[in-house]
Amino acid sequence: MLACIKQAAAIVNCELGLLDKAIKDVIVKACEDIRAGKLHEQFVVDVIQGGAGTSTNMNANEVIANLALEHMGHKRGEYQYLHPNEHVNMSQSTNDVYSTALKVATYFGIFRLVDAMAVLRRAFETKADEFSDVLKMGRTQLQDAVPMTLGQEFSAYAVMLGEDEERLKEAAMLICEINLGATAIGTGINAHPEYAGFVCRRLADIAGIPLVTAPNLVEATQDCGAFVQLSGVLKRVAVKLSKTCNDLRLLSSGPRAGLGEINLPPMQAGSSIMPGKVNPVIPEVVNQTTPG
Amino acid sequence: MLACIKQAAAIVNCELGLLDKAIKDVIVKACEDIRAGKLHEQFVVDVIQGGAGTSTNMNANEVIANLALEHMGHKRGEYQYLHPNEHVNMSQSTNDVYSTALKVATYFGIFRLVDAMAVLRRAFETKADEFSDVLKMGRTQLQDAVPMTLGQEFSAYAVMLGEDEERLKEAAMLICEINLGATAIGTGINAHPEYAGFVCRRLADIAGIPLVTAPNLVEATQDCGAFVQLSGVLKRVAVKLSKTCNDLRLLSSGPRAGLGEINLPPMQAGSSIMPGKVNPVIPEVVNQTTPG
Amino acid sequence: MLACIKQAAAIVNCELGLLDKAIKDVIVKACEDIRAGKLHEQFVVDVIQGGAGTSTNMNANEVIANLALEHMGHKRGEYQYLHPNEHVNMSQSTNDVYSTALKVATYFGIFRLVDAMAVLRRAFETKADEFSDVLKMGRTQLQDAVPMTLGQEFSAYAVMLGEDEERLKEAAMLICEINLGATAIGTGINAHPEYAGFVCRRLADIAGIPLVTAPNLVEATQDCGAFVQLSGVLKRVAVKLSKTCNDLRLLSSGPRAGLGEINLPPMQAGSSIMPGKVNPVIPEVVNQTTPG
Amino acid sequence: MLACIKQAAAIVNCELGLLDKAIKDVIVKACEDIRAGKLHEQFVVDVIQGGAGTSTNMNANEVIANLALEHMGHKRGEYQYLHPNEHVNMSQSTNDVYSTALKVATYFGIFRLVDAMAVLRRAFETKADEFSDVLKMGRTQLQDAVPMTLGQEFSAYAVMLGEDEERLKEAAMLICEINLGATAIGTGINAHPEYAGFVCRRLADIAGIPLVTAPNLVEATQDCGAFVQLSGVLKRVAVKLSKTCNDLRLLSSGPRAGLGEINLPPMQAGSSIMPGKVNPVIPEVVNQTTPG
Repeated sequence: MLACIKQAAAIVNCELGLLDKAIKDVIVKACEDIRAGKLHEQFVVDVIQGGAGTSTNMNANEVIANLALEHMGHKRGEYQYLHPNEHVNMSQSTNDVYSTALKVATYFGIFRLVDAMAVLRRAFETKADEFSDVLKMGRTQLQDAVPMTLGQEFSAYAVMLGEDEERLKEAAMLICEINLGATAIGTGINAHPEYAGFVCRRLADIAGIPLVTAPNLVEATQDCGAFVQLSGVLKRVAVKLSKTCNDLRLLSSGPRAGLGEINLPPMQAGSSIMPGKVNPVIPEVVNQTTPG
Repeated sequence: MLACIKQAAAIVNCELGLLDKAIKDVIVKACEDIRAGKLHEQFVVDVIQGGAGTSTNMNANEVIANLALEHMGHKRGEYQYLHPNEHVNMSQSTNDVYSTALKVATYFGIFRLVDAMAVLRRAFETKADEFSDVLKMGRTQLQDAVPMTLGQEFSAYAVMLGEDEERLKEAAMLICEINLGATAIGTGINAHPEYAGFVCRRLADIAGIPLVTAPNLVEATQDCGAFVQLSGVLKRVAVKLSKTCNDLRLLSSGPRAGLGEINLPPMQAGSSIMPGKVNPVIPEVVNQTTPG
Repeated sequence: MLACIKQAAAIVNCELGLLDKAIKDVIVKACEDIRAGKLHEQFVVDVIQGGAGTSTNMNANEVIANLALEHMGHKRGEYQYLHPNEHVNMSQSTNDVYSTALKVATYFGIFRLVDAMAVLRRAFETKADEFSDVLKMGRTQLQDAVPMTLGQEFSAYAVMLGEDEERLKEAAMLICEINLGATAIGTGINAHPEYAGFVCRRLADIAGIPLVTAPNLVEATQDCGAFVQLSGVLKRVAVKLSKTCNDLRLLSSGPRAGLGEINLPPMQAGSSIMPGKVNPVIPEVVNQTTPG
Repeated sequence: MLACIKQAAAIVNCELGLLDKAIKDVIVKACEDIRAGKLHEQFVVDVIQGGAGTSTNMNANEVIANLALEHMGHKRGEYQYLHPNEHVNMSQSTNDVYSTALKVATYFGIFRLVDAMAVLRRAFETKADEFSDVLKMGRTQLQDAVPMTLGQEFSAYAVMLGEDEERLKEAAMLICEINLGATAIGTGINAHPEYAGFVCRRLADIAGIPLVTAPNLVEATQDCGAFVQLSGVLKRVAVKLSKTCNDLRLLSSGPRAGLGEINLPPMQAGSSIMPGKVNPVIPEVVNQTTPG
């Protein structure tokens, strides 16, 4: 994602007359190489690092600079022609670049999750149709209560997931507000007054995401609200998936001394001591990965 | 809040021809008495209780029934004329009544918080204007970085709060989806088919809240998603308030061996051993009440 | 608990020749009055307060001073004879007094919990004997596995509780290490060199607890390790009680469409819509009060 | 760790007359191969799995069986001579083998942490000596309070760590209580009555750890108390390390507009926009990895 940002920044810096076209062209070419999957082995910095991500940003600046130098016909390290800080990082600071890259990556991650949830939701919808005539005991507080169908039960699981897909899409919209152009602390020091607006539109085009610039860049540079909100929505998804999996485990308990209302397909070859046993391993994995 | 629901239910049950007008009238009168603040000492059930809130719901049914009996000229306990379960709780179950009451109460609670946050936001905005010319060191990672104004710093606090007011209002809208009419498990057993829609509109009028009936009542009866989402938004508010208070404590550190950029007004009479000392007690209280 | 500390401090200050015997005597008498339950209505400070507890400490100093003044035959507020800071708070700071009071109170709280757990443990032991011949299906992962007795199941609950009683007693021993005599930051400023050792032994006598002075008072004044450790042990107790209650709810599910292996005694009058229903309300309350 | 257990089980099964010496010998040889680091690429099961770890246990049984078959001169898969379940897993269940392996691994992990903490503690002790004459302002609630030395401050950090080393060693002792011999649910089904005691002593020898068999194996098979307790102690370590790192960041703030009492060595080449800047990156990494 950093390569998208470096590419957008170089183009806008050139448009604003701050960067030579020749240098812009080789930076763009280098960024496109990285986005195509090349040179990933050159990103050697651990994801857990102190500071604001400076090491990762500098790692990207240096890889891009050296690759661009090679495209110019120079040797790696001949920074007098194209410099990691002066040219690749122009108009930028770790404090706006890194958080913007994180938001772009998060946006794509959210939609991968939404797509997976839709697959599961449709599977529950199919089961809801299949079980629409299966009458069963409805329970409250684990005690027998009043009748319902097994289809109603599976339909509820589908509806729960569908609602959470909507909530995730809303959270994705909040993630689209970026502070690119804020530079170090939000005052835009070292950047052209027009830069923030231009680079946001350019990055939105490159990444294919509806990005907007935050109205107050000082605030946006110290604000992690969109991530806390997303965390809350992910907790919501986890709580409901976990509840559904608890139900599936209860409903499939048995075969003789349990509720025995559904059969889960066997996914794992038995127990080491009781080879015929079928365990609800998929719901158990989900329960293990969802917080309390 | 339960009294609002019991009142709405009685009116709708009467409209649907299920409840005598005379009984409806005394139930409504009893509910209005309770909503006016009478008889709160009769609600004796602890808020921590097993089950789904059955004890609280039955407590309300019985208080309302006995009060209504007195309005009819009967003695308390003469349930042959008006019964807590049969008349006051008609078309209802704890499982829809209690969660709806909780949502109505939560809605009002959210807006009390939003109002308090707006007061604080305006105070920060005033300080932002007052300090708009005070130049200071901007810091990143607690290290000296580049200049900014103290006004920009306070403006950021105001903007943070303003955004969270918007998020809370969105969370309040999700809280407005109720399962009233679902009865025990969402199948609407014991309730008239028209009841759910009618009672939602009636309750919305009485409470003055834009309530809507959930599209799938089985799902809505087992879904706590709106509360988890609200919890996430409250966490967001808490994280940002806590960050702001940490800043206020750092900026007011000193007077001689600290940053000493602002002075907080003294709110507490000193230390027991160093009587002249001023502690940042208000930010500290906020930090104590916000989770990590 | 603060009154115990103020009493111990006054006695030691007098022994060290820092406080007149007459003033010591009335402070001791006032502290004994408070410990006997008098004047609790004079402690008006909210438990949530900024700072280190200064307001609560000053509240105690002032109540004791005024009560002592009355014992001397003076009027309240005639601090020229006996002063809240100079005499009652002598050799003390909020930073050692408040944390020591908290530890003494916590020690007693731990043993109230241990006693309650022993009652529950003995009840499980009785049931284990009673059910020692009841053969049942043992389950793993909610699936039928191999046979066991219901007595073995209840015996496990008893053993779990017994182990946690031991862990709580160990945590109580860590709580007994206090920083009294550290004063403001652990350097013992404003206190006699012998004070810390003397006052610890005196307070141990008064409170009846095996208190010891921390070896490094600077460290002890900023260390909350014993409380974090206790929190971990309480989490352990909560996790196991919650697991036991989940088991009780599962085993009592039914009566027809559940496991139905045990019957819990009815504790609450039914459901509002299904009056004959028995809910596992006591286990549910425990589950509600235990964190995830 | 599973290989240690399989080795101990084979030896004890042979001693009890349940397993041929020839088969025991090749199982032991296969286990020693694995413990020497061979064949790690054959353990292909993801650590996140449903069930109780059955897949991992079966993975181990099969790798050991096939390796032992090769040592016998047979081909892989000729299970008629030596079977993964019947011989390698004899007297065992995933439910005792897996949790015992986890405890043995945790024991070694605890002591790796204790060793690392001792290195850090000694570094703080060295600094405490070096700074024993550096007078500085002591602070409470970030406000100037009374004098102390920088050496006292670093000494406190060392003492904190030393105490936590002791707590970790206590938690390690609780981890040493294992349920090996419990088999599926703690009743020891499929195992010889003498097996549990024998295999514990044998495993203690092989692993070099003071293991003991839990007094009640039904309880021990469903009890995770030692892990919850350890989690509490690790939280204690994390809270204190995090507090120490917060102090280091505050004390090194500046250079001009901060407290500036200490200088941390530069560990990272500057900021991308302010190349001369030194960030407290090591304390920041620690703070990032410690929970709130």
